Amino acid sequence: MSRYWSDVVHRLTPYVPGEQPRIEGLVKLNTNECPYGPSEAVLAAMAAQTGEALRLYPDPQSSALREAIAAHHGLKPAQVFVGNGSDEVLAHAFLALLKHEAPLLHPDISYSFYPVYAKLYGIHTRELPLAEDFGIRVDDFLAATGDAQGAGAIIFPNPNAPTGMALPRAEIRRLLDGVPDAPVVIDEAYVDFGGESAAALIDRYPQLLVTRTLSKSRALAGLRVGYALGDPALIEALTRVKDSFNSYPLDRVAAAGAVASMQDEAWFAATCARIVATRERLTAALAARGFQVLPSAANFVFARHPGHAGAALAAALREHKVLVRQFPRPARIADFLRISIGTEAQTDTLLAALDRVLAAA
Amino acid sequence: MSRYWSDVVHRLTPYVPGEQPRIEGLVKLNTNECPYGPSEAVLAAMAAQTGEALRLYPDPQSSALREAIAAHHGLKPAQVFVGNGSDEVLAHAFLALLKHEAPLLHPDISYSFYPVYAKLYGIHTRELPLAEDFGIRVDDFLAATGDAQGAGAIIFPNPNAPTGMALPRAEIRRLLDGVPDAPVVIDEAYVDFGGESAAALIDRYPQLLVTRTLSKSRALAGLRVGYALGDPALIEALTRVKDSFNSYPLDRVAAAGAVASMQDEAWFAATCARIVATRERLTAALAARGFQVLPSAANFVFARHPGHAGAALAAALREHKVLVRQFPRPARIADFLRISIGTEAQTDTLLAALDRVLAAA
Repeated sequence: MSRYWSDVVHRLTPYVPGEQPRIEGLVKLNTNECPYGPSEAVLAAMAAQTGEALRLYPDPQSSALREAIAAHHGLKPAQVFVGNGSDEVLAHAFLALLKHEAPLLHPDISYSFYPVYAKLYGIHTRELPLAEDFGIRVDDFLAATGDAQGAGAIIFPNPNAPTGMALPRAEIRRLLDGVPDAPVVIDEAYVDFGGESAAALIDRYPQLLVTRTLSKSRALAGLRVGYALGDPALIEALTRVKDSFNSYPLDRVAAAGAVASMQDEAWFAATCARIVATRERLTAALAARGFQVLPSAANFVFARHPGHAGAALAAALREHKVLVRQFPRPARIADFLRISIGTEAQTDTLLAALDRVLAAA
Repeated sequence: MSRYWSDVVHRLTPYVPGEQPRIEGLVKLNTNECPYGPSEAVLAAMAAQTGEALRLYPDPQSSALREAIAAHHGLKPAQVFVGNGSDEVLAHAFLALLKHEAPLLHPDISYSFYPVYAKLYGIHTRELPLAEDFGIRVDDFLAATGDAQGAGAIIFPNPNAPTGMALPRAEIRRLLDGVPDAPVVIDEAYVDFGGESAAALIDRYPQLLVTRTLSKSRALAGLRVGYALGDPALIEALTRVKDSFNSYPLDRVAAAGAVASMQDEAWFAATCARIVATRERLTAALAARGFQVLPSAANFVFARHPGHAGAALAAALREHKVLVRQFPRPARIADFLRISIGTEAQTDTLLAALDRVLAAA
């Protein structure tokens, strides 16, 4: 606390990212990173940019990258916005598109950064509870949009985090058909592992913004590149905020690596398939050990054991040098572990550690 | 315009950065980039980070970089904040430290991004005119702080942009002694070319925040790294905003390059000296051609010719493939050209082009 702080700073509750510990030999399954390194084409493109030209500012429009992303999705560059990780893209979306008189709707169990952004920008929010089975109920969003409070905007991840559960595209269309007047942001950080993307709906729904990241399915969490897809009017809103905040959020090397990543479809398809295969093996192995595992379309699973408290289980795994994430709040998910999909070998280590922990209890 | 936009977006007037044209053979003296490439140590450190570890998130605290910066300035890491270019650092400072009931004071001729940030965050500002000789008058800031409107905070660049003129440290101390209750941000983007830094005053003035960039004197405009120095309470305010916006603004490669840059004092001293020498030659050459050149402590000069309108001169130079920057507003500076210091050869090209333009007129 300081008398020099603005009122905004006093009211903030900053986001707490998953731990990035520096412990030798740790099996790190807590932040949904890709267990495999990025495409060689990415590294080569970055190396080619690591030179004298760093003295020059990057292209403030990131045109080459927006073209590569547009090509990947069959869209136009005017339908693409890029930023310093999808967290920055989301931050700009909150200020540019999600701040209205009526509240912003989001699921009660969801990406825990959403309420943080809302506090930062003074956005009134309304949390809608997930169903008993932890799915998102489109009917609840439609009902809330139509009631007295209404909806200024809607945001949710698909697949949702930390549940990993995906909403089918037909359900998303039903939502968009019922909410034509409010921006709807679908945060597709995890969509490449089995979800149905709403990117194909961009041309039909002017209120739809889809956000993406290169951190998960493209193994570039360390590069900080994310993007959004939407109608050019929505992209313009994000661009106006970005150009009032920081003209050049993507450095030359990161932009070059991201272009190469978007163009390496073979690496991308193979890596996603590999992670999905390990996820299926892990899901079966956890079920065999008595865990309830929510149906995941992401690069993590969300699972609880009827005989073990989540916090105790996470702490015991940590003693075996396996790091997973557990969310103390809300109470309804406190017994779940969110376990990122690792390599086959890391999965073996995790399962062996679990066996020891469960046997000892 | 779109019904999906927030009110904020409608009222924005985004910043327009200097052009980044892709024209073969252009002598680009319009965005104050360093004419020499960065230190080889920077490129080596970046190459060493361009590998498999990119799959992992960076350190959200950027501890290694904050330690390197602290060591360079003789400060503690708790007195250092880092961000995606000093533009992002400034954006966070506007929201965290410069938004108060009383207006934010800044010079009328100054970094043109300041009013843009103020609009983004709804900050009331009050512009204080520069003196007749284009210097910042500390007495005017002291008087404004004491009058009915008062001062919620103060910001100015030192050296000022686009004038290039520096305020001596004794004047900055006089300002800080007279304004103990309001945050004072001194934007030292250009200080390494001859200004007296206020970094040495951090321990004595808890209201002082100094911002810096690696874009100019460290030849890393393409890397997007900036930082702020100040009392730990001010740094905490910035960190709280950053952790409510984007946990990891610096990618792994950029952070590694920045550490190496801060540690290469020999390259840094030699490059600054080289640019200062060229600036002195250019200043004399412009004066010999009839220009009025403001006394510059930056890596650019601000100069006008009594016989030529600024816009016409800039356009004529562009026809000779030399790009400089001219600001149409305010009218008082419309006849000035802001010319970045280039290599010796670029300076020769500029002067030859000027000779042709002046002879033709």
